[in-house]
Amino acid sequence: MGSLLVVGSVAFDTVRTPFGEATEVLGGSATYFSTAASFFTDVELIAVVGEDFPESHIDFLKSRGIDLTGLERRGGKTFRWRGEYTYQLNEAHTLETHLNVLETFRPKIPEQYRSPKMLFLGNIDPELQLDVLNQVERPRLVACDTMNFWIGGKRDALWRVLEKVDVLVINDGEARDLGQDSNLVKVAKETLARGPKHLIIKRGEHGVLMFNQKHTFGAPAFPLEMVKDPTGAGDTFAGGFMGHLASTGDLSEAGFRRAIIFGSVMASFTVEAFSLDRLRCLEYKEIEARFREFKRLTHFEDLS
Amino acid sequence: MGSLLVVGSVAFDTVRTPFGEATEVLGGSATYFSTAASFFTDVELIAVVGEDFPESHIDFLKSRGIDLTGLERRGGKTFRWRGEYTYQLNEAHTLETHLNVLETFRPKIPEQYRSPKMLFLGNIDPELQLDVLNQVERPRLVACDTMNFWIGGKRDALWRVLEKVDVLVINDGEARDLGQDSNLVKVAKETLARGPKHLIIKRGEHGVLMFNQKHTFGAPAFPLEMVKDPTGAGDTFAGGFMGHLASTGDLSEAGFRRAIIFGSVMASFTVEAFSLDRLRCLEYKEIEARFREFKRLTHFEDLS
Repeated sequence: MGSLLVVGSVAFDTVRTPFGEATEVLGGSATYFSTAASFFTDVELIAVVGEDFPESHIDFLKSRGIDLTGLERRGGKTFRWRGEYTYQLNEAHTLETHLNVLETFRPKIPEQYRSPKMLFLGNIDPELQLDVLNQVERPRLVACDTMNFWIGGKRDALWRVLEKVDVLVINDGEARDLGQDSNLVKVAKETLARGPKHLIIKRGEHGVLMFNQKHTFGAPAFPLEMVKDPTGAGDTFAGGFMGHLASTGDLSEAGFRRAIIFGSVMASFTVEAFSLDRLRCLEYKEIEARFREFKRLTHFEDLS
Repeated sequence: MGSLLVVGSVAFDTVRTPFGEATEVLGGSATYFSTAASFFTDVELIAVVGEDFPESHIDFLKSRGIDLTGLERRGGKTFRWRGEYTYQLNEAHTLETHLNVLETFRPKIPEQYRSPKMLFLGNIDPELQLDVLNQVERPRLVACDTMNFWIGGKRDALWRVLEKVDVLVINDGEARDLGQDSNLVKVAKETLARGPKHLIIKRGEHGVLMFNQKHTFGAPAFPLEMVKDPTGAGDTFAGGFMGHLASTGDLSEAGFRRAIIFGSVMASFTVEAFSLDRLRCLEYKEIEARFREFKRLTHFEDLS
């Protein structure tokens, strides 16, 4: 029985930022997620790639201990995304999207993965997210992401997903679209009333907010002197967050908060280089060291 | 001998936000600053108003215990600012500025205020900031603010000010202009190398960062369900920050961090209503209660 199951995309990204560019490099939400999570727990990846997906990328994912039984290889080309960032690094401008094999992707969960402890549904079509939920025994924790495209185009299906998940992890723009309000506290109230027990709002360089019925938690992003490429930061955050939760099994408020900091730590490494390059050479002791730096960054003494 | 001396503007503001509007209400950087600081310490206000400034505003400032000996009343009209905010509440759009009596304002520090413990220089012309510094014995702590107009137009004079102050308190847009870099960590390094020992960057709804040679501190803004009018939030922050520092005299890292949270608390109240209306009815116990909420908002357990 597996620990953490993720369904999402594996892609080739072509990215330009003010600090360089990268062409057809390894990307995709499930790639970033599973690589980040692999520092904490066992991960099974459900995704699809084309004939053009090289063995070297497979080898990398395997080297991270990621179970690729559910990685479907199909005739055709791998999903491709091309985008750029200006100095306003918080926002990606999509220039091209070629869904390719992703267009007809119907996630099929292999028999041995149907009782995951935890499940993360990447930002695929909400109908497919529902389909995945129907294929598995209810995990102890289900989290999902989504994107503006589905918030606008498949709102009803998306709410049906949200009624079934424990944690929704989205960015601030998506949250405002979903809640149809500019105020994130109002959006959180509305969302929690209708669906997930926890809403995590990623704000890029401005950090993270988590809302649930009892508490609000806020953490800044780790201040970095060099952000080379923000691509994958949000997925890496989710991977570190879920990976850490899966490793401890601690679903208390304190456990969630720590997991959010681990997610933020992982995201802060990812943006230091293009693609997953920073994660390729990352060691666990660096993760712990940055967690401690996060504590020093945010700590202040309470009133006596 | 006074405790905290502030030099800045007193104004009539006309403000429109998505949640309402206010016409010719009490505003100005020194007004917000001194009112916020007055919850913590004795404040002396150096500013100028015109003949049209009503006794009721004077009475309000006096009711907060603010010493108005240095508030000059002059023939002519009080400084007026008119601006609006869209749903993107972080950014004010200035529609009109009438300097009026502020145009020829030359702050003159009354004899009895020339040995302040602490001094805050509002965002007036850096030449005037220097002039104020020359009129006083070096206080234990000097902080200043500035604005894009001076960063662009009086850069050299501004750097001469910055070499003489301990703390620079500016917003993120101003910081990027000052450091001529989009990365705030780089801006901080550059700024600290040339001038103040502490750089505090206000990021509106995204909170605050403080940099000094040894530490970085980050705090989110307090998440609010209703932000009616962000006008004065930054000045209120500075007032709460300096007011608390003046009250404790604790200039350690821990003291600075607590003061930053008190500043954030004060700002979070100000934006709940137009003008200084929320501060008019604020009680100290509410400030402490929100400080404790801030602690709960940001706390997470360190690694063992």
